[in-house]
Amino acid sequence: MQDNFQIEAVCGQARLARLATAHGVVPTPVFMPVGTLAAVKGVPQAVLEELGVEILLANTYHLYLRPGAELVRDSGGLHRFMSWDRAILTDSGGFQVFSLASLRQLTEEGVQFRSHLDGSLHFLSPERATEIQIALGADVIMAFDECTEYPAELARARASMELTLRWAKRCRDCFEAHRQKTPVDAKGRKNPQLLFAIVQGGMFPELRAECTQRLVAMDFPGYAIGGLSVGEPRALTYEIVARTLEHLPPDKPRYLMGVGTPEEIVQYARLGIDMMDCVLPTRAARHGLLFTSEGRMNIKAARYARDFEPLDPDCGCSVCARYSRAYLRHLYACHEVLAQVLNTIHNLAYYLDTMRRVRQAINFGDFRRAARGVSSAEGKAN
Amino acid sequence: MQDNFQIEAVCGQARLARLATAHGVVPTPVFMPVGTLAAVKGVPQAVLEELGVEILLANTYHLYLRPGAELVRDSGGLHRFMSWDRAILTDSGGFQVFSLASLRQLTEEGVQFRSHLDGSLHFLSPERATEIQIALGADVIMAFDECTEYPAELARARASMELTLRWAKRCRDCFEAHRQKTPVDAKGRKNPQLLFAIVQGGMFPELRAECTQRLVAMDFPGYAIGGLSVGEPRALTYEIVARTLEHLPPDKPRYLMGVGTPEEIVQYARLGIDMMDCVLPTRAARHGLLFTSEGRMNIKAARYARDFEPLDPDCGCSVCARYSRAYLRHLYACHEVLAQVLNTIHNLAYYLDTMRRVRQAINFGDFRRAARGVSSAEGKAN
Repeated sequence: MQDNFQIEAVCGQARLARLATAHGVVPTPVFMPVGTLAAVKGVPQAVLEELGVEILLANTYHLYLRPGAELVRDSGGLHRFMSWDRAILTDSGGFQVFSLASLRQLTEEGVQFRSHLDGSLHFLSPERATEIQIALGADVIMAFDECTEYPAELARARASMELTLRWAKRCRDCFEAHRQKTPVDAKGRKNPQLLFAIVQGGMFPELRAECTQRLVAMDFPGYAIGGLSVGEPRALTYEIVARTLEHLPPDKPRYLMGVGTPEEIVQYARLGIDMMDCVLPTRAARHGLLFTSEGRMNIKAARYARDFEPLDPDCGCSVCARYSRAYLRHLYACHEVLAQVLNTIHNLAYYLDTMRRVRQAINFGDFRRAARGVSSAEGKAN
Repeated sequence: MQDNFQIEAVCGQARLARLATAHGVVPTPVFMPVGTLAAVKGVPQAVLEELGVEILLANTYHLYLRPGAELVRDSGGLHRFMSWDRAILTDSGGFQVFSLASLRQLTEEGVQFRSHLDGSLHFLSPERATEIQIALGADVIMAFDECTEYPAELARARASMELTLRWAKRCRDCFEAHRQKTPVDAKGRKNPQLLFAIVQGGMFPELRAECTQRLVAMDFPGYAIGGLSVGEPRALTYEIVARTLEHLPPDKPRYLMGVGTPEEIVQYARLGIDMMDCVLPTRAARHGLLFTSEGRMNIKAARYARDFEPLDPDCGCSVCARYSRAYLRHLYACHEVLAQVLNTIHNLAYYLDTMRRVRQAINFGDFRRAARGVSSAEGKAN
């Protein structure tokens, strides 16, 4: 058992734990809202605090392009730059390079790519991605990996996994050599960062097992499962997650990247996942798709025009406490920016409440508590 | 002296007063933020409350088109619809019909026009505009007027003014006949509305004087000065405002429509104006133009990229308390919606603080207190 991750209760495979960072203790299982460019789109930091967000995710690829890692370091690090005193996790940029950038040239050394913004030429490698993340100064940083495409043949998935393994070692070596370069925070401290490795291996359980074992042999303080939710059927995602978890050490945090729906995050927590992130609640909010205890609501639908009931009578968030479906529908129909702001606040509240219910369920030893509300939502989804 | 407007102090021509409404007492001089479609673009109502907004302006023309006055009435009125329990003023739609709608056909009866949204055909008249405003249920509603274009010859300005006078009488008659149709609020009360008249008369002081006197003879509970800030030189605006104020009764609220910069709203208050509204703070915010004690800042400027100082060290708003210029510049440069949210909050705070300073100055009998900060801002504007 290491110091920064304390398991407090288990329920089946699910774990209730506390991840200690220099910016607060994060209760897990946790959902991390995505703040791509050091901002959750449309939501002020004070509102995120009120929502109970304990850890945010920010994107290395995006912050490297704008405003640049050196600027963030010079400002005192990401926490000071964005005025967020709770925990932050940065991804390594690997996923974005493979999904957003163009004209990629992959070599053993790293990836040359053109910015999705202006076509300018850039190069990221395990060392550069690590140095950038040291400069940003997040509490948890991620190894630079290759996100294997789907579908991929066994030979291709193995070659990609081997590259990710070699890169993981280079990330760790670079991190050990340069971790002291992390910015000095407002209190004059250097933020002790945790470098997590990422398990790849495509949709092959035997590769996932091997990748996990070889990463665990390198002894990282936490492990992520990457390369999922890339187009495969959901049942396959579950299988790969479950099979990978069998090989991860029980005393280290486990982070499943880029998932999922409210129903899915409950199920992944049940399998033993501790950390998750997804753009779904924030992106769906911008498109008027709201998650509620009565199921999914497409707030732009005409049937809400004269629906003067609260958005979700079972939700205690500031939006549901104050606004009717008719008002939210009006804002969305008129393209008012406030629609995006309020929809995002509600969807994040729904996700965070879901994870609070999961943690309570684990604590009380009855995981059905967590699933109940969500399966009712599944039933009524419209 | 009528019940709903109590003057508490005077300083030169400026007046400190309290406008009593069913939704709270509004201290004047007051600046009214614009919430065109029953929302201040990007700012949740709770934030407006924290900012100390005591009265909001909403637009009859826009709300008539979307979501429609009957829907708002059925929801319980504008206050309930938008969950805003403080005062609201609705304009009559006259200005928007003349500035936004197309294919206008003006007759004695009213104005036929096509919606700027979908080209659909609509008709507004003094009676329709009044009925709509009764349905919306704002605390202060405005007579339907013709906003005389600039420049206009004397004969044209007189004819337009005469129409506005005939329409004012029709508005008042309609209001007296139908005011009981205002929606029932959350507490089961009907909101007692105040109908203000609008002084027109182009840029001719003698027409303004005549229009004022004839409206005052009809005895409205408040008077607005319309048809200004329509392209005329600012010195002419001041002259017309000053010459019009000479003829307005001292014991009734005086509302100057559609002004102005922070410097101007101080000067208009000094002339004896009690209420003002303007899209400038909110619209400028969306374009990255920020009003500060050090002058105007164009936050997108490259020189703020590494400026880690607070936006305005002399401002106590939640944005200046928390965020640096570099961060706000980053958000704006990346087209993050949060830029609009935070910029708008700050600009509104700046306007509201300016008016608080004006009220304090009147109370202490030294109007130079109010002007000081602003003239310094004028000097340093960049």
